[in-house]
Amino acid sequence: MEQFSKTERNTVKRVPKRGHYDKKSVYEILDAGFIAHVGFSIDGQPFVIPTAYGRKDDQIYLHGATTSRLIQHLQTGAPVCITVTFVDGVVLARSVFHHSANYRSAVVFGTARLATDEEKMDALEVVTEHIHKGRWEEARQPNAKELKATSVLIVDIEQGSAKIRTGGPSDDKEDYELPIWAGVIPMDTVFRKPVTDPLLKEGIPMPPSVLPFAE
Amino acid sequence: MEQFSKTERNTVKRVPKRGHYDKKSVYEILDAGFIAHVGFSIDGQPFVIPTAYGRKDDQIYLHGATTSRLIQHLQTGAPVCITVTFVDGVVLARSVFHHSANYRSAVVFGTARLATDEEKMDALEVVTEHIHKGRWEEARQPNAKELKATSVLIVDIEQGSAKIRTGGPSDDKEDYELPIWAGVIPMDTVFRKPVTDPLLKEGIPMPPSVLPFAE
Repeated sequence: MEQFSKTERNTVKRVPKRGHYDKKSVYEILDAGFIAHVGFSIDGQPFVIPTAYGRKDDQIYLHGATTSRLIQHLQTGAPVCITVTFVDGVVLARSVFHHSANYRSAVVFGTARLATDEEKMDALEVVTEHIHKGRWEEARQPNAKELKATSVLIVDIEQGSAKIRTGGPSDDKEDYELPIWAGVIPMDTVFRKPVTDPLLKEGIPMPPSVLPFAE
Repeated sequence: MEQFSKTERNTVKRVPKRGHYDKKSVYEILDAGFIAHVGFSIDGQPFVIPTAYGRKDDQIYLHGATTSRLIQHLQTGAPVCITVTFVDGVVLARSVFHHSANYRSAVVFGTARLATDEEKMDALEVVTEHIHKGRWEEARQPNAKELKATSVLIVDIEQGSAKIRTGGPSDDKEDYELPIWAGVIPMDTVFRKPVTDPLLKEGIPMPPSVLPFAE
């Protein structure tokens, strides 16, 4: 498996056994996520902004209004950290100290540049398909005016790591004798039935990309 | 309603009508969240780390091993940005350009300091109760050794904002004539039935804090 280089920056320090540095583990989390938390720093002030994204090979695409702070700052080639997290459960141990969560998180580091006009359309397709698979071909694609108002950042992923916890609580040996319930409450993200826009013209059926959510 | 001061740092620039600066809106999102994405910058390199947290009044508590990077760095009083996000739905518009998400996000800015030994226990109670309400009194509380191994950061919330999108797609006027389905696929986070630790001693019932999740 292809691995990220491991340096101080991307090393999982707390509970190192939960750290993974192979691209497959990191990209699986990125690809399954819906929004990313994008971190950057302006004059020492950190910002963490949730946003849509898409991944292709070793690149992440971010899009936004050309005037947005995130776009304006990152297009200068400033370092960026992009994090995608799933919480899979609350882990209730016998001791407060060993309370935890089951989770999967991917943290990647890189630098961004603006996509060229030639690259933009492909990148927007990747982002749109990440938001909702199959939608690019169903919806009206961007026109010249919209393309002009949209900037796309291409982030070259330089390093990354995944951190994953699964399983039940792990208590100190002597605490297993305590009369305290322990276990996991699993958490999950679910989709509900699609809600059709009340302004939709009559006679337009749900498209193939949406139908599975109606079942 | 008490408002945060509004400066360049916490102003919602894109779609300003989605921005909220009253503490109630921001704290409702913080209190409903499970994990926060904590952003900080070391020598210009941003990091975004998902972690548990708790809020009380105008403070956020973060805890971790005394050796963790987040704890080590933020205890110096470095600026921090803490973001909590809910995704409530995928918004499928007629045009790719107007695709969006329904979401609620809170972004707060502040600086941290280490909790004193006197403050630590209360802060850990707030974090534990945030992870799972009612758990502090059910579980074995931290002993001296565990308290020593745990650091707690107290972040004074200096500024914050919430950004909230609700409702259906909003397309350009002429696009409403297109034969393209539009609507929202709602998303939700759900808890599944609790899974008892297979190592639990016999005869220990589910406690009051967990029972509602079993129904």
